[in-house]
Amino acid sequence: MRAPELIGRKRDGGELTADELAWLVNGYLDGSVSEGQTAAWLMAGVIRGFSEAEARALTGVLVASGETLDLQRLSGPTVDKHSTGGVGDGTTLLVAPLLAAVGVRVVKLSGRGLGHTGGTLDKLEAIPGMRTDLEPDELLRIADEVGCVVAAQTGRLVPADKALYALRDVTGTVASTALIASSVMSKKIAAGAQTIVLDVKAGDGAFMPDRAAAEALARLCVSIGSDAGRPTVALVTAMDQPLGRGIGNALEVAEAVDLLRDAPAGRLAEVALALAEAALHRTDAVVGSVGGDARERLVTAWTDGSALETLGRMIAAQGGDAAVCESPERVLPRADVVKDVVALHGGVVAGLPARAVGDLAASLGAGRSRPGEDVDPAVGIHVAIEVGDEVEPGATVATVHARSDDDAQAAANRFRELIRWSDEPVSRPDVILERLQ
Amino acid sequence: MRAPELIGRKRDGGELTADELAWLVNGYLDGSVSEGQTAAWLMAGVIRGFSEAEARALTGVLVASGETLDLQRLSGPTVDKHSTGGVGDGTTLLVAPLLAAVGVRVVKLSGRGLGHTGGTLDKLEAIPGMRTDLEPDELLRIADEVGCVVAAQTGRLVPADKALYALRDVTGTVASTALIASSVMSKKIAAGAQTIVLDVKAGDGAFMPDRAAAEALARLCVSIGSDAGRPTVALVTAMDQPLGRGIGNALEVAEAVDLLRDAPAGRLAEVALALAEAALHRTDAVVGSVGGDARERLVTAWTDGSALETLGRMIAAQGGDAAVCESPERVLPRADVVKDVVALHGGVVAGLPARAVGDLAASLGAGRSRPGEDVDPAVGIHVAIEVGDEVEPGATVATVHARSDDDAQAAANRFRELIRWSDEPVSRPDVILERLQ
Repeated sequence: MRAPELIGRKRDGGELTADELAWLVNGYLDGSVSEGQTAAWLMAGVIRGFSEAEARALTGVLVASGETLDLQRLSGPTVDKHSTGGVGDGTTLLVAPLLAAVGVRVVKLSGRGLGHTGGTLDKLEAIPGMRTDLEPDELLRIADEVGCVVAAQTGRLVPADKALYALRDVTGTVASTALIASSVMSKKIAAGAQTIVLDVKAGDGAFMPDRAAAEALARLCVSIGSDAGRPTVALVTAMDQPLGRGIGNALEVAEAVDLLRDAPAGRLAEVALALAEAALHRTDAVVGSVGGDARERLVTAWTDGSALETLGRMIAAQGGDAAVCESPERVLPRADVVKDVVALHGGVVAGLPARAVGDLAASLGAGRSRPGEDVDPAVGIHVAIEVGDEVEPGATVATVHARSDDDAQAAANRFRELIRWSDEPVSRPDVILERLQ
Repeated sequence: MRAPELIGRKRDGGELTADELAWLVNGYLDGSVSEGQTAAWLMAGVIRGFSEAEARALTGVLVASGETLDLQRLSGPTVDKHSTGGVGDGTTLLVAPLLAAVGVRVVKLSGRGLGHTGGTLDKLEAIPGMRTDLEPDELLRIADEVGCVVAAQTGRLVPADKALYALRDVTGTVASTALIASSVMSKKIAAGAQTIVLDVKAGDGAFMPDRAAAEALARLCVSIGSDAGRPTVALVTAMDQPLGRGIGNALEVAEAVDLLRDAPAGRLAEVALALAEAALHRTDAVVGSVGGDARERLVTAWTDGSALETLGRMIAAQGGDAAVCESPERVLPRADVVKDVVALHGGVVAGLPARAVGDLAASLGAGRSRPGEDVDPAVGIHVAIEVGDEVEPGATVATVHARSDDDAQAAANRFRELIRWSDEPVSRPDVILERLQ
């Protein structure tokens, strides 16, 4: 094979075979295909589009580039969960223990936050002692003993994805549904679970703001999963306002614990329950139901405290202080300055842009503008309102957790600016937009 | 400026400014813009298209990347000539001395042949002693003393073009009218002549086989030249059969000498004369006519022997054996085996594909399949027929000059296969297809 010929075919709108894609990508890894050739191929594909067959084949190439986790030896059906990322998106902290509490095994490899979006690892590391760099053996042991484990993505899985993404990131070739889908699905497939549940966000705070684009991504991911023998279900969910109330790492852990103490309520709980339910349906279809209605089983595990108890055991198994599940405010780091933001006038909340709120929390120190930067686990914003709420003048609309009075004051002013008000009633928007499998 | 932003704009069909193009290309040269970023930008431009403004700006960036020749101090109007390359295309050997003989100064920097196309340097180096690596001072001295000089392109002019071309060559990004035009024109502008004449070939043996594409290239080159204050005229000429009779380096030199000994005749002479005339018209318009009709002056210089005499002086000035102009057969290297190819049956010649004939000559050793390979100056094919000729059975249709009997026999067989015959009369196709300025 010759790289210029393959690149030229893609440039002219043609399709590459699985063998050709493997030759190109592996050639990039071993240096026999140059960075320029790889970037030219990526750009040709981004503009001309990759076919579904190419996306499936590329996923296989990425998976084959590294190790895979063998979850076969776990005693129980295995599920993996992925979110395309959002603001106040602590679903993993709920979904993982919830599924574990009903007998599913969840081995979840996560990433860190970037820009306005948070990352599960950052959230977990707000818990004192928590370790997220786990070797495969330890991962499997905890999954077996506790039912769930959440750890850092290892470089030994899908190294080609990491290399390609680093190149895409600097060459304007990120924005391709096929490349995004194959990147997401290769990581999930390599991580070994039988069933995959995806939360594809749509809205201004999402990686793909456009709903149709988010749906296309979800559809392609589901297709790739099925093709690889990993039944996949995807929810498209709203990310045009923060999903949870906490935006900031300790705040989001505290919110998850608080939610699991009670019956499920609010939009974050709704999405978490829907994701867990979709996964459980898929799992039941694959391994045979363990009996009973999926949603009922999950709500029971939530309300009877077994999900919270599972979360505590997972935290303990990963070296964290499980007392966080009893009194998060005592265990989690707290910001020096905690300041309520009050509404200067009343009205109905018509909008609270997720991206801007995420950027605001990041600017307080909760997030990072480039990979590798430290985050401050204590800071962030606790949002007290959501779209549709009627607010009285003087009511608290948020609480800012900051490192200084200046930071807190600036964030409070900015937060007030971000709220879009209406004089008319505003209906609460749906949070679950689509379910694809 | 950020490379991903500029690449993204091009990916989405936008346009870069001259400053942005300079930043990208110079960044590629100094390493601050990566190979992958440069290739991604090139691919985006190849697919989305570069605007005329971008092509003009890019030409300026390429010119500014290196030295330029200062031809101002030459005593007389200066002309440069470029051909996009073909088979049996010895026009430079005629046009340069012809223009010099009527008082124009021609400093022509040339390249080598590749694939089925020949290169002027290879042709000149068939003449014993001929030097083509000349320093700028020597170039100008010979141009002043003789009127014309033909030498190798130096790496000190347009280094950015060389670097970009090397990347384009391996990344499937050669096929862009704007990139080709800016590459051609940057070299011509840096070489310093007041007026530029281009021979853009169309047909199967041309770099751009499609006539409309060749015209678009010619038009863009003319626009770039005008924009840069270098009046440019372009002829689009036919390259679907070999232009001259000789295909092979010594054979083409001998043909040029033979043509200049007589009144102009045949298609090669027609194109050479048309190129010289177009250049002279353009030059007259710029510097004021030196008197008399351009074509008449050129035909006089041809028929009275002054063009041939000028060629001889140029060869001598560059270290070559000027006796080649009296008896080429005595001075030029000769192949070991010279074999006539006879027609096995009679008919009218309907086609003789230039590319395949060029490939055949290259396979005898006259050309190279990759840069840097040696060529054999002696070998090649002398073609005795052209489209429209009526041929009797047993007539000689070509003479093969080869290194061995086997080579000669194989080439003879192949040459016979290449001729397309007709039973009906075939009209002689036009060779000058278009004139643009």
